[in-house]
Amino acid sequence: MQLIDGKKVSADIKAEIRAEVEQMVKDGKRRPHLVGILVGHDGGSETYMANKVKSCAECGFESTLIRYEDDVTEAELLAKVQELNADPAVDGFIVQLPLPKHISEQKVIEAIDYRKDVDGFHPVNAGRMAIGLPCFKSATPAGILELLARYNIDTKGKHCVVLGRSNIVGRPVAELMMQKSYPGNCTVTICHSATPDIASFTHQADIIIAAIGKPAFLKGDMVKDGVVVIDVGTTRVPDASRKSGFRLQGDVEFANLAPKSSFIPPVPGGVGPMTIVSLMKNTLLAAKGEIYHG
Amino acid sequence: MQLIDGKKVSADIKAEIRAEVEQMVKDGKRRPHLVGILVGHDGGSETYMANKVKSCAECGFESTLIRYEDDVTEAELLAKVQELNADPAVDGFIVQLPLPKHISEQKVIEAIDYRKDVDGFHPVNAGRMAIGLPCFKSATPAGILELLARYNIDTKGKHCVVLGRSNIVGRPVAELMMQKSYPGNCTVTICHSATPDIASFTHQADIIIAAIGKPAFLKGDMVKDGVVVIDVGTTRVPDASRKSGFRLQGDVEFANLAPKSSFIPPVPGGVGPMTIVSLMKNTLLAAKGEIYHG
Repeated sequence: MQLIDGKKVSADIKAEIRAEVEQMVKDGKRRPHLVGILVGHDGGSETYMANKVKSCAECGFESTLIRYEDDVTEAELLAKVQELNADPAVDGFIVQLPLPKHISEQKVIEAIDYRKDVDGFHPVNAGRMAIGLPCFKSATPAGILELLARYNIDTKGKHCVVLGRSNIVGRPVAELMMQKSYPGNCTVTICHSATPDIASFTHQADIIIAAIGKPAFLKGDMVKDGVVVIDVGTTRVPDASRKSGFRLQGDVEFANLAPKSSFIPPVPGGVGPMTIVSLMKNTLLAAKGEIYHG
Repeated sequence: MQLIDGKKVSADIKAEIRAEVEQMVKDGKRRPHLVGILVGHDGGSETYMANKVKSCAECGFESTLIRYEDDVTEAELLAKVQELNADPAVDGFIVQLPLPKHISEQKVIEAIDYRKDVDGFHPVNAGRMAIGLPCFKSATPAGILELLARYNIDTKGKHCVVLGRSNIVGRPVAELMMQKSYPGNCTVTICHSATPDIASFTHQADIIIAAIGKPAFLKGDMVKDGVVVIDVGTTRVPDASRKSGFRLQGDVEFANLAPKSSFIPPVPGGVGPMTIVSLMKNTLLAAKGEIYHG
């Protein structure tokens, strides 16, 4: 069993990005600039956004954090999106989800200029990714593929079972894993809440990507020996032994599954840091104009 | 075994569309108007386009067929696309594929205003379909789902195996079949040229959608009893007994597979007519402004 160290890989990639950015600055170009919009004070969102701001600094990017209280109106938020769309000093921006219930997340996502949509959530980027065209790839799926690539994990002709069909992870990672490129070129099966017997599929899998949002769902007796497991789950479960009162639990029961796996990441420290790295890579691509302005 | 009669279903739907169009005309609205662009004289393309023009008449639509010779330049074609994008008397238009090699099909597809892209090939429509938003759905996948619905075929929790990952059929139909709606909500497996043992997957399938482009690929001994089979293949194979010198062969070896199936369409007369019906439905939606102007 080899542990997939998302922390180390993400640190390596951030160092690569930083080197490229410093060269850009030497060449007289300005630093990539990412703007984040954070609404309210959700604990998870605060943590994610703080990590994104920190990663920008590590990559040598300029960053701006715009905060609103929970009572911001949809119109105010959409006006800010339009302003950022038009601002040539902003390469990319993200609106941290979830948003308060009185604001349509889909409306906000679609209002973002797809050329600055570094989260890869806009329909144009989702469509171009599905078709296999250059785009800002959805951040978590792209991070998963990057992990597979950095560990030289063989994927061609393998059976990849994806647990979950969300628009953020399950569906787009399935699309990437089926494409005729590396990592990918897998036979892909997508299981979800309507699948009667998920274990019957995970038993067949060479690679399992668990993004079903159920803590410790995938057990050791549901897989075959040598499976590659990617755990995307990050549910906060109560833990009295922690100062915070909770710990992050993946979709995988790590202790029983790890001995049967060939590769498996910990949670936290696996896919999580890679999602932020994908965001940084997309921001760099946006600043360089390689996807839509080249 | 029940034969899925695409000819009959498509005739039924065209009659439904016609009734709606006649009501629109009574209400003082103009008829939906579809424009088709046909480049060159490929036999298959000629037949498809002639059928589309005929279907427009059956639905009570206005139609215009614009023809170019094989030596039309990309610039000329793109100029025509821009003209049709801007023409308020055109609800939707299609460019018949394939195009001659000196013209970029992707460039032409992306030049079409997505609000008139009734084939559903534009990245905006591909992305919105993947996400599950209202859009012009890709015509063949939508036609397949319509067939499943008209025959009340149970899909929830079933294992649907898709053969082929093309952007026209395999990948988008997999996306639709995994969505939480009817028809759909299936566990979906996508097999393709890199899948080492396709039979090991088709043996498990409750529903098989064959879109792999290999004549008579799926044999009777590759499926379990009671399987639902949808055959999307239409390869021209030489047949000296026909006046034309060829016949259309599906991806399914019909004679041996039909006795084991619960539902199966013939080729031709199965999915083919449904693709055109999807195009008619999208054109009607475009004329009514229900997807993008509503």
